[in-house]
This record gives sequence, structure tokens and C-alpha cells, in this order.
Amino acid sequence: MFKKKNKYTVAVVGATGAVGREMVSILEERKFPVSELVLLASDRSEGEKIEFSGKIRSVGKLAKDSFKDVDIVLFSAGSDRSLKFAPIAVEAGAIVIDSSGAFRMDPKVPLVVPEINAHALEKHAGIIASPNCSSIGLLMALKPIHAAVKIKRIVVTTFQSVSGTGKDAIDELAGQTVALLNFKDIEKKIYPHQIAFNCLPHVDGFLENGYTREEMEMADGIRKVVEDESIQLTATAVRVPVFRSHAESVNIETERKISANEARAVLSKMPGVVVYDDPSRSLYPLQLDVTGKDETYIGRVREDETIKNGLNLWIVIDNIRKGAALNAVQIAEHLIS
Amino acid sequence: MFKKKNKYTVAVVGATGAVGREMVSILEERKFPVSELVLLASDRSEGEKIEFSGKIRSVGKLAKDSFKDVDIVLFSAGSDRSLKFAPIAVEAGAIVIDSSGAFRMDPKVPLVVPEINAHALEKHAGIIASPNCSSIGLLMALKPIHAAVKIKRIVVTTFQSVSGTGKDAIDELAGQTVALLNFKDIEKKIYPHQIAFNCLPHVDGFLENGYTREEMEMADGIRKVVEDESIQLTATAVRVPVFRSHAESVNIETERKISANEARAVLSKMPGVVVYDDPSRSLYPLQLDVTGKDETYIGRVREDETIKNGLNLWIVIDNIRKGAALNAVQIAEHLIS
Repeated sequence: MFKKKNKYTVAVVGATGAVGREMVSILEERKFPVSELVLLASDRSEGEKIEFSGKIRSVGKLAKDSFKDVDIVLFSAGSDRSLKFAPIAVEAGAIVIDSSGAFRMDPKVPLVVPEINAHALEKHAGIIASPNCSSIGLLMALKPIHAAVKIKRIVVTTFQSVSGTGKDAIDELAGQTVALLNFKDIEKKIYPHQIAFNCLPHVDGFLENGYTREEMEMADGIRKVVEDESIQLTATAVRVPVFRSHAESVNIETERKISANEARAVLSKMPGVVVYDDPSRSLYPLQLDVTGKDETYIGRVREDETIKNGLNLWIVIDNIRKGAALNAVQIAEHLIS
Repeated sequence: MFKKKNKYTVAVVGATGAVGREMVSILEERKFPVSELVLLASDRSEGEKIEFSGKIRSVGKLAKDSFKDVDIVLFSAGSDRSLKFAPIAVEAGAIVIDSSGAFRMDPKVPLVVPEINAHALEKHAGIIASPNCSSIGLLMALKPIHAAVKIKRIVVTTFQSVSGTGKDAIDELAGQTVALLNFKDIEKKIYPHQIAFNCLPHVDGFLENGYTREEMEMADGIRKVVEDESIQLTATAVRVPVFRSHAESVNIETERKISANEARAVLSKMPGVVVYDDPSRSLYPLQLDVTGKDETYIGRVREDETIKNGLNLWIVIDNIRKGAALNAVQIAEHLIS
């Protein structure tokens, strides 16, 4: 179904969003063999200009006929648009790499982090999904530990930046901060509560069981990518007043014992992971420092003595790059390799 | 040793700090029977003016002879000053209520949250300690659950505001935020890294085992106040760019099953606790809302299905009030009642 070529026509849906823009620049940075780049977005953003490989391109309006002669479509425009337009793109002969939550748990759709389960790309029906940003960060750390000592249960609390919600949320944090420092009233459009100088234990919508979709999706996503239904995960997802990159406080129970030193050793060998862990010099991963980085950073590795085989970690990932845009482009690279 | 009177001479050590100022205003609010208020601080703050009961008072310099005729001393000036001056105050005949970490784990010193273990006040040697702010928030939630179904293990991640570090840290967050919004370089004096728009997995100093003192102290403090050495606790303490109040993401494993509804019911009956938990209307405790409140707020109560008897909670406490100043004044109230 997918024909190898020298160069590919690539479309980016949601090209003007935070992730879409990063997809465009990563395609250029990594010299993805693009013959033609098609930039698509909603009416609101039609006509916006984006630079790619030294040329200014105009953003077109996403429509049913947008995918003619397109080989690969990177979707990052929300679940609703993916649900509607991904099947149309597949029908038109393209392969879809979707960063939204629309298809992640669909059994016909591989959910892929290339460093972990690139083999899952061998079988698909035109759509491939990229896990959500918090799951990718967690997966990069969990996979080598799971391989070494088998993970039984994870308790994770996230510190998610506003860029995970999109460009308007970045503006909201900046705007509220400026307003507060000038003793003015704040505006709330994106979040139900003030996000400036405040943390919201609310990421995505709430479900019947009291968890958010984000919290439940992490459990499902991790089991699917690691291909082990026995892994248990409970999550609390929190939005913090940080512009970019997500942090995660992770407690892990494993089947066999792993010391902090052994954990650092296996994590260091994982492609795409940097162990950054020297508390005596106040060195641990920070959202500010990891922003713009491709790697997932891990620090504060320490044994949890409250259970037989316990480990605590602090993970930081650039949610826009490896958490979304980079992972999608890496999937595309695997498809054409 | 401690003579009941109609009114008491009360000293506040560290009177110009965030907690010290709150102690002064809480003594007034709660109509503590003060005959004389002695305000003490280091040289740097000597001569500063603070209002109490409609009268402006001058802050004196903390010295060995500061405690003559003082009945009760509230210490909130750091461990070093408590270690040096608390025994001097006791020697002079005063009773000391210490908010620092200096004496918390001293077996001769009761560690008290009045709603939980006021009985521990019956036996002391002149010094009584107040637990650290994160521990108090956690204890207010844990105690009724422990009484109902016995807690085996806790995994907690904190979201601690900069006011926990003191007034200079509040200035640092505000100053860095203003600088960044004006595209200027930031100044770092209090924290080793930028705190504006960033989260630091680093509260208090690091120990040999990779944990911070804050993280280890939570485990020790909780066991001491609840008077159950079997409770296991592992913590990750994180500083967030929020001015005031601490939040905590808490996972609890209990001996017997407790449903989310039952947990809400027992928490609601705990004096000093407010259950604020209606996710369908985006209602959950927020640091911004709990600031200035006496109660500890608990929300996002939900069962954790990854273990037989699991529960997740989100706790928010005003670290300056119930987390420090109010708890100290409540201890004083119990002593004189």
C-alpha cells in the first residue's frame, strides 16, 4: 500500500498550531525527503505563512480534497478533525500519522514510539497513532526498566505545561501573568480556573470514575506500546504554570530488585534517554532546560524502600518535540526507511 | 511547669517573616489572651513595625535575654535559631512552640497537630514542635482514613509554593517573572535554578540516599503524629511557581477497602478538613482558593483499581496558616485551655 520513493509529498494538518509548526521545522532539521509540503489548517488560519527550507509557504484550508497525491499526512489538529479527515486521507492513498487521541486505542491502529516498538509499524491499515505526550515520556523511562526487571505497577503524577493545550493556552498563561503583575483582572478562556501562579489537577475531560481521560489514557497507552497487559498504572495529571515541557514524578514497583545505580545504567543505554542525576550539585532535569531537546531526561533516581522492589524517578520531556512532533516524524522516517 | 493565667506574655521569634507575621495576625483574629506581645527577629529586621490589636509595635533583636517573663514563645526563624534559642527560652521559664525542623524528631518533644494528637501535649519538657507544612496537609487527610481502614503505604508528590521558603523566595518568583516578561535577565539568589515558569524537584537539602530532608521528614513526621510506626511513605517534593499554599498528589494503600464515597464521608467528619470534590463542575481544591483558609481542602477522591485497596487524593493546604502559623497558635490554645 505504501510505495517507497526518493521524495514524498507530506501534508501537515494543524500546521499553524504549536505541534504543527514544530513538525514543519523538524522535517527540515532532520532533512526528511520532502518533494512537496502541504500545510493545512482550519479557516481561521487559512493564508498564514510558514517557512520551510527557505521558502515561505501559505497555509491552505483543510478540506475533503486536500489529500490528492499526498503520501504522508501528519495530523495534529485535535481528535475531531483526525476522526473526520484521517479516513479521507487514507482513502485518497496517503498514510496517516496521527498525534491526536482519536485512534490510539483502536486495535487496527499501531501506537508507536519508534525507540520502543517500531516493529508494530509492519502491520497497519493506513493510520498510525503517536501516544500522548505524558505517555511518551513515561514510556522512554519504563521500557528499559521493564526489560530489565519487569514492571508491575506505576504511580505517576504529572506536571504538564500549558503548551500541551495549544497556542491559546500559552497566550492565556502569559496574559494572566502580565495582568496579575499589573493588578488587573485576568481573562479565562481556555482553562476553567486561573493558571498563572496556580496548579490545576485537571487535564482533559473527567470520566465517570473520577479520573480524567488523560489519566486513563496513560495506563492504556503504556500497556499497548510495551505490549504487556499486566502493567498496572494509576495517574494524577496536573497542569502547572510552565510554558513548555512536561515533568513526571514516577513511583515504580518491579518484579525483581533493581538498584538506583543499575536503573541509571539501563536507562543510560536507552536511545533517546539522557540520565541527568547529580543532586549533590543540584542537577536534575528541569522543564526549562529540556525544552527544545529531543531526548527524554531522567533524574532523581532513587530506591523506594517502602516496598520490596521500588524505584522513584523524575522524568522531563519536551511535550511538543518528542512528546508529539518529533515522535510523529520519527514514525515517518521508519516508514520510509 | 506551665502556670495557667488569664492572659499571657507571648513572644514571636521570626516576627517579620511570612509565618511570623501570620502568627501575629492569627493571635489577634482568634483573640488569644495576650497581655504582652514581644516581637523578635534578627538584627536585619530590628526596629520594623508590626500592628497588633490596633497598636503599632516595634520588632526587637533576638538575644539571650529576650525571654524574661515570657510565658509562650512561637518560633519561626529557621532551625539554627530554634536550636540555639529554644533551650534558652525554656531555661527562662517559657514554653516553646517551634515551627522549625530543629526538634521534630526529638523523642522528648511532642510533635502535634491539635486535631489529631492533642493528647501528646500532656507530656513535654518545655518544647513542642509543629510538623512541617506538607506533613500537616497530609496528616489532616490521612488520620480519618487511617482510623477507618488503616493505612499501609503512601506515595506522595508535592506541589509546594515558594512561600514555604520564605519572603525572599516570594520576591524571587515575582522578580524573575517580571524580568522574563520584560525580556531581561533573571536573578537567582534563593533557588539554584529559575523558579518562574519552572518546577524544581528539590525542596530542602539532599541526603546520601538521594532523597531530600523534606521527603524523609514527611515519612518520619507522619509516623510520629499518627503514632503508628508501620505506616510506609515515599515522597517526591517539588517546588512550583506558585506564591502560596501547597498541593499534594497522594496515593494510599489501605489494609481494608474504602470506597471513594466512604472516604469522602470520613474526611468530611474530620475537624479542619473540607471535602471539595465535584469534577463534573470543575471543582477541586486549588492553591489560589485555599490561600487564607484555615481548613485543609481535599478533592479528586477516587479509587485506585491497580491495587486491592487503593485511593487517590488531591490535598491543598495554606502552608503559611494551617501549615505553620495557625497550627502553632492552635497548640498554644490547647496548652492554655
